[in-house]
Amino acid sequence: MMGVTLLKAEQIRTLAGRALHRVGVPDENAALQIDLLLEAELRGRPSHGLLRLPRLVERINNSVASGTASGIHKWRGDSLLEVDGEGGLGPVVAMKALNEAARRAKEAGVAVVAIRNNNHLGMLAWYADRIASRGFVLLGLSTSEALVHAWGGRSAILGTNPIAIGVPTAREPFVLDMATSLVSMGQIHDHAQRDQPIPEGWAVDANGDATTDAAAAKSGAIAPFGDAKGYALGLAIEVLIVSLTNSAIGRDVTGTLDSTTACNKGDLFVVVDPAMGKDLAARISQYLDAVRASGDKVAVPGDRARATRQQKLTGGVLLPQELWHRLCDLAGATRQH
Amino acid sequence: MMGVTLLKAEQIRTLAGRALHRVGVPDENAALQIDLLLEAELRGRPSHGLLRLPRLVERINNSVASGTASGIHKWRGDSLLEVDGEGGLGPVVAMKALNEAARRAKEAGVAVVAIRNNNHLGMLAWYADRIASRGFVLLGLSTSEALVHAWGGRSAILGTNPIAIGVPTAREPFVLDMATSLVSMGQIHDHAQRDQPIPEGWAVDANGDATTDAAAAKSGAIAPFGDAKGYALGLAIEVLIVSLTNSAIGRDVTGTLDSTTACNKGDLFVVVDPAMGKDLAARISQYLDAVRASGDKVAVPGDRARATRQQKLTGGVLLPQELWHRLCDLAGATRQH
Repeated sequence: MMGVTLLKAEQIRTLAGRALHRVGVPDENAALQIDLLLEAELRGRPSHGLLRLPRLVERINNSVASGTASGIHKWRGDSLLEVDGEGGLGPVVAMKALNEAARRAKEAGVAVVAIRNNNHLGMLAWYADRIASRGFVLLGLSTSEALVHAWGGRSAILGTNPIAIGVPTAREPFVLDMATSLVSMGQIHDHAQRDQPIPEGWAVDANGDATTDAAAAKSGAIAPFGDAKGYALGLAIEVLIVSLTNSAIGRDVTGTLDSTTACNKGDLFVVVDPAMGKDLAARISQYLDAVRASGDKVAVPGDRARATRQQKLTGGVLLPQELWHRLCDLAGATRQH
Repeated sequence: MMGVTLLKAEQIRTLAGRALHRVGVPDENAALQIDLLLEAELRGRPSHGLLRLPRLVERINNSVASGTASGIHKWRGDSLLEVDGEGGLGPVVAMKALNEAARRAKEAGVAVVAIRNNNHLGMLAWYADRIASRGFVLLGLSTSEALVHAWGGRSAILGTNPIAIGVPTAREPFVLDMATSLVSMGQIHDHAQRDQPIPEGWAVDANGDATTDAAAAKSGAIAPFGDAKGYALGLAIEVLIVSLTNSAIGRDVTGTLDSTTACNKGDLFVVVDPAMGKDLAARISQYLDAVRASGDKVAVPGDRARATRQQKLTGGVLLPQELWHRLCDLAGATRQH
């Protein structure tokens, strides 16, 4: 059994900040990157959490990620912002672009951001929440390395291609954030590590045959969510992003999982100013309450994450001890536990 | 066994044109509406086909649809077009707005269209195909009457909320068009008519209990596709559209199925000019071929519809005899079969 360490969010923030400072990331950029990873921990999504930091540090050390770059902006027309991310940190490049886009959306109604050469965005909910909290509607899409097979397919040819949608309401923003894969490769690895079989339908092996062997699935491909429809959506997201970012596609995508290759996937955001009045915001919140009340087990996207966040903000975040030690080493700090 | 009638596409076009002419729809508007319905027949989606015409005629006669209105346009900023559809015909209002949006996207890079008070859009693939054929990327979303339950829910509270994505390629456009429900209410009705049970997981009855009784499902709710994720996506589409169109939401949506109430749902389109060069278009087409080759049973969205269309263009379209007779009556024509 691996040990775990219970930490306050601020402890993590401080230590991770030192780790990024040591590899030359300016404080402002480090703060964004760490907030993104920490929020994933707080919302109960450790696969997008601090686990990612050691690899990011390696990527900076290997010069396939830049802690200082924030992206080169080029407006094509009034409302389409094309960004060369220059290999900057995912949230640094994306938030600079989204801030510009929100400003433009205030005037033009809408702005679209098409980003290439950017590092991993991490949890898209973070962007949707930030932008929707400022009163804007956000649609966010991103590609990633091919891990997912087509419906009826035998090999990985699609990214996990997440979609996020953020909408302001009378209370906290409505935030959807989901991958278009049935499960994450992280879940497959978890099962493999624990020598547990995976459920039928999760994956195919390297030969393209259906498998319940987690170890075999690691070198195969994971299923799209929602059968043919979910596959079709994931494929559409892949094609849509590439058409607007001119990024790599399918099996050509690299750098979202390793620490040695440049990240050549694409990110796409649509920012709209809904100019929403109080009545409309209230009507949306009332509707979401009616959805919650439509069954004992109904949750609205974001509900569980919000509850988990509240609990972890007071109770603390559990990190694997090994990860915490790694972060201490990266920060040049004495191991505090 | 009900009879069927084999017809050439042009026969249908002519007859349907007369039917709409008789209720005062200008030729240009009728041509758009009929092309939309006919294309659904050609692509093997009769639930969105000529079946819809008699109800549309009734809606015009009942003054809840207007054959002449084409929508009032109001630009909010350079790139956001708000449209009051004035109860016009779905494709008439939408195509006028999309033509404007495409013009604007040519200059601004992007335009978003938010439509309310418009009649049923029909098959979204038709719009995606048209706009992508002209070199633009299209994202199309629409709400509809509540027929779908939340994941874990017991009553209908979501529309079937379709999503369409059209992207130009080096060949025919890539076109995704899918509802976010697991099946259509039409499929439930089909089973009920043939006294066949429906598969488990398709629907709940009026009490919110899972059912395989098609008749009971008719007064209940159909499942979202893709379990929790598909539900979350359908809900996000509902909320996103309402936030930008200020249209009705959830159980308040009317007029997409009946012939007596005004249609108060919302439609949302994002039009982007990808300024796509030949290389990128070719790269996308090559990728789609690689996806097709990734398994014996893999289809890219649109492949089957395209094959069916080709076959029906030469072989003809089969309509239920009863529907054909109805169309003949509406056109004031002698029944030709």
